[in-house]
Amino acid sequence: MASSVPVRALVFDAYGTLFDVESISIACEELFPGKGAELSRRWRSKQLEYSWLRTLMGRYVEFETITRDALGTACRQLGLELTPSSAEPLMAGYRKLRMFPEVRDAFSALRMGRKTAILSNGSPGMLNALLEHAGLSFDAVISVDELKTFKPFPATYGLVVKRLGISAGEVGFVSSNFWDIAGATSYGFRTFWINRNGSQPDELGFRPHAVVSRLNEIGQLIS
Amino acid sequence: MASSVPVRALVFDAYGTLFDVESISIACEELFPGKGAELSRRWRSKQLEYSWLRTLMGRYVEFETITRDALGTACRQLGLELTPSSAEPLMAGYRKLRMFPEVRDAFSALRMGRKTAILSNGSPGMLNALLEHAGLSFDAVISVDELKTFKPFPATYGLVVKRLGISAGEVGFVSSNFWDIAGATSYGFRTFWINRNGSQPDELGFRPHAVVSRLNEIGQLIS
Repeated sequence: MASSVPVRALVFDAYGTLFDVESISIACEELFPGKGAELSRRWRSKQLEYSWLRTLMGRYVEFETITRDALGTACRQLGLELTPSSAEPLMAGYRKLRMFPEVRDAFSALRMGRKTAILSNGSPGMLNALLEHAGLSFDAVISVDELKTFKPFPATYGLVVKRLGISAGEVGFVSSNFWDIAGATSYGFRTFWINRNGSQPDELGFRPHAVVSRLNEIGQLIS
Repeated sequence: MASSVPVRALVFDAYGTLFDVESISIACEELFPGKGAELSRRWRSKQLEYSWLRTLMGRYVEFETITRDALGTACRQLGLELTPSSAEPLMAGYRKLRMFPEVRDAFSALRMGRKTAILSNGSPGMLNALLEHAGLSFDAVISVDELKTFKPFPATYGLVVKRLGISAGEVGFVSSNFWDIAGATSYGFRTFWINRNGSQPDELGFRPHAVVSRLNEIGQLIS
């Protein structure tokens, strides 16, 4: 693992990395008492699955639609009755996910003259709402939506290189999603896996350049 | 749902459709008492996930490797210690999965002058071992391995059209994996979803032409 990595731009994944997708479980629990945690886990799992499968099938729809479809399936699988009106507060909650507690301070410290960007599966509308709610700003907010394909398809990482005008090796990419880290490493980014819960890495042929448990631990690893 | 569909060739998925991937849970249970069912479920889930992600990343490795990698991850995630020698009987078990009980009779009845084929993610070595063990034979055994990409990437379904020399609309495609059915329907096949356990369909923009609970129910739906 590299102890010091030259990084000209820091690029962050949004869902699960800066924003806690499990924080939606509170809204889920209000609607379906006793089922909030299970519903939010399954919702997230289906959301990812649908993004991968639709990219493979060449049948892109934007992340908002995928998120809504995944919610519907997750509820049906758990035997929970979701009406259009009960779906709305949950979908709205996805635009106001809780930011992880260390993000704001860590982010200020990490900037230090570097470019910063988000690269997310989220549609522009979802991302802008999320960032506005959190009061975070970036030099670039890049949604895969302009390519009509989701991560970890290589061209999605290519959007960063194109937009920021730097080479892949100069990008420090930060994600808590291991599959995203694998895709970004495969593309050629320097990668930092945020492993908040002691998860086991997946076996996809690529390892992160560094593993940390919080965003604020990245500063000491880059120069 | 079409009640009568003209079908010139019947093409079957292998894993989960003709062969019971959960039958490996017996070998898992012998090795890790009390954990067999959970391990086999997670193993299968990781196997699919890795096949999708590696295709998206453009980092194909053959299904045997993916199956082995998925087994390793599933064990680590469950805190089970897998040694190289204990992995072997499990990997060997994947070449001798139990055939679903109705398959042999249903298959004879369904042939009726039609071409039959398998289209599978499995590597040729795995597929041939499986079919030999079961004593089943097909006009064509098609592995995605020749494309170095996994289902549901559209070109994988295109292998069938090319090999059998018929049009997509003349193919009746049979799978118990809903995501596979979605991919095949999107490609233009007539699709039959084998839903043995009353599963909820996924929301991927495509529905099967028919849903049955056993293979032998397909005969009355095709002409």
